[in-house]
Amino acid sequence: MGKVLILYHSEDGNTGKMAKYIAEGAAEVPDIDIRVKSIDEASRDDIHWCDGLALGSPTYLGTVSSEMKRFWESFVDTDWQKIDGKIGCAFSSQGGWGGGAELTCQALMTIMLNFGFLVFGVTDYSGHQFTMHYGVTQAGEPREEKQIEGCRRLGRRLAEWVAVFVDGRKDQHPLVAGRQRNPWDK
Amino acid sequence: MGKVLILYHSEDGNTGKMAKYIAEGAAEVPDIDIRVKSIDEASRDDIHWCDGLALGSPTYLGTVSSEMKRFWESFVDTDWQKIDGKIGCAFSSQGGWGGGAELTCQALMTIMLNFGFLVFGVTDYSGHQFTMHYGVTQAGEPREEKQIEGCRRLGRRLAEWVAVFVDGRKDQHPLVAGRQRNPWDK
Amino acid sequence: MGKVLILYHSEDGNTGKMAKYIAEGAAEVPDIDIRVKSIDEASRDDIHWCDGLALGSPTYLGTVSSEMKRFWESFVDTDWQKIDGKIGCAFSSQGGWGGGAELTCQALMTIMLNFGFLVFGVTDYSGHQFTMHYGVTQAGEPREEKQIEGCRRLGRRLAEWVAVFVDGRKDQHPLVAGRQRNPWDK
Amino acid sequence: MGKVLILYHSEDGNTGKMAKYIAEGAAEVPDIDIRVKSIDEASRDDIHWCDGLALGSPTYLGTVSSEMKRFWESFVDTDWQKIDGKIGCAFSSQGGWGGGAELTCQALMTIMLNFGFLVFGVTDYSGHQFTMHYGVTQAGEPREEKQIEGCRRLGRRLAEWVAVFVDGRKDQHPLVAGRQRNPWDK
Repeated sequence: MGKVLILYHSEDGNTGKMAKYIAEGAAEVPDIDIRVKSIDEASRDDIHWCDGLALGSPTYLGTVSSEMKRFWESFVDTDWQKIDGKIGCAFSSQGGWGGGAELTCQALMTIMLNFGFLVFGVTDYSGHQFTMHYGVTQAGEPREEKQIEGCRRLGRRLAEWVAVFVDGRKDQHPLVAGRQRNPWDK
Repeated sequence: MGKVLILYHSEDGNTGKMAKYIAEGAAEVPDIDIRVKSIDEASRDDIHWCDGLALGSPTYLGTVSSEMKRFWESFVDTDWQKIDGKIGCAFSSQGGWGGGAELTCQALMTIMLNFGFLVFGVTDYSGHQFTMHYGVTQAGEPREEKQIEGCRRLGRRLAEWVAVFVDGRKDQHPLVAGRQRNPWDK
Repeated sequence: MGKVLILYHSEDGNTGKMAKYIAEGAAEVPDIDIRVKSIDEASRDDIHWCDGLALGSPTYLGTVSSEMKRFWESFVDTDWQKIDGKIGCAFSSQGGWGGGAELTCQALMTIMLNFGFLVFGVTDYSGHQFTMHYGVTQAGEPREEKQIEGCRRLGRRLAEWVAVFVDGRKDQHPLVAGRQRNPWDK
Repeated sequence: MGKVLILYHSEDGNTGKMAKYIAEGAAEVPDIDIRVKSIDEASRDDIHWCDGLALGSPTYLGTVSSEMKRFWESFVDTDWQKIDGKIGCAFSSQGGWGGGAELTCQALMTIMLNFGFLVFGVTDYSGHQFTMHYGVTQAGEPREEKQIEGCRRLGRRLAEWVAVFVDGRKDQHPLVAGRQRNPWDK
């Protein structure tokens, strides 16, 4: 059974709320084992455990928090080149739109690429003028339905890719499964 | 008198509207010469002419449009290493929030860095949860006041930096001039 | 049988030479169908055909060439949201080290992310102080053995991931298959 | 007299060696006050002091070190929006070519943009197939003359821009001063 980890750093709770919604979205795909942890609760063992990872950090100065960065630096010596081939995606909450959350998602993906992950974004729209092409970005906490659904969609897509690529459940492919992808879809 | 060029590519008109508001913001600084041109109307002569440049492209596939890219490629052979030291900033309209406009601003800045520009973003907030830290980003066209003011602020900051650094008018420095920078400022 | 496409734009031939070596590397994995095409020879049908894609562009002004960008823009209207779930990686030749090939690989990955690809880099070292963490980067043409091997390694890893994730051949996983990954490995 | 700070984090000494050469380059421009400090020796007062900043971090996992990130986070609350208008550039040492030093320079520039800096790269070539378009990148320590000269050139350009833009010494503009910019120049 495919294993999905939602791992985040959050100080004011916004990125933590995103993590919760992402977990809800992952649970829309049956037969996926899901863990949600903050970096204070997680260890390298959780990274080894998972097949798919949604990684979230607040946007501080246009990139990942020093705490999130230190978490990954802490096991480079022991684990680098030993966890290749996992599937990853990113999410971030910023102070305001235009404040760097896309750049932070890019940085989170860069960290995962460095560890040999295959990373992705979501092509879907979760509502009017709202998408998750390079991970979920948010200003403050997610409040509107399209923002909450954006988080859920990232989690669902992660679970879908884990089901398809790790468990070989090709019926879960988003081009096959027939779940709604855009507000304008019937 | 400092010269500011607002140069853009726009197909559906959204990035073009941003250009208009950016020009309005540049005009808030006295004694700045301002040109607004689409890449269809502009040539390398306009680049040589300006001291400061606001460069805008729609976000297509998370980066600059091929048309905007081709514009800059067209005078690499003749002008590269001959226009160093200009001041630049970026703006972009995307299909939806999270759709790559920050990444497009980053790509526009990369192109300008390659030509020796000094590039900047705006630290100010133009309204609740809205900023222009790496250039102005927009979903669709700017409609809300904070979005319109975000465009104006980028133009104003560009004109301010041109006044300060090119014309030596240190009274126009945003830390000195005393213009409003955030909605929470008195 | 997994299908791998190596697709490139090249004007002076350097990125084209990289494509040739990448194809050699892909061929190190048995039972993979391989196509090498320039964007002049390729169409959207080739994108649909492949399971895995190595995408290469020269570094022009720190990002992808306008030709490469136009290629992808040409089928957005017909194919976007219809090809999600392919596996991708990037390569680029720049004028000099420090000239933007990493940024170009990042831009190529951004384009692929926008189309729903899962993208990756290679954690291995192909020689002393030479790696492909975010795709293969090169100054001019690949001449040294570690540069050529870097290209091959990207192709091999792409074929490995296609074998593992698309064909379910878990014995081809780089953590299992036992192929050499670093010059310091026995 | 223009003030230049070279600020770095270095654990194995490679980025520290780059800092030393960058300081040598800055000293090629007369009448510039120069400080070189590691983040252990520096404080926010040094940031306030300088007109121009060369900021260096080792490349760890494709981006800035957590230590460098924490340094900047430590004075966000007190100093953000209070130091706009300084001039900045970046440098980084990575484990191998292709290992992310360009991405790290981009991240360093993002941090500086967030604080209102104007950031730049160097269009010059310091030797065959070696440039500093987005800051100086290095694998390990700088050993070859073109690598050392690349560092010096970044420092010299920073001092030149400070002289031109802060001190109004337009004779120091690289398009005017007549210093060598490329190995193929007479």
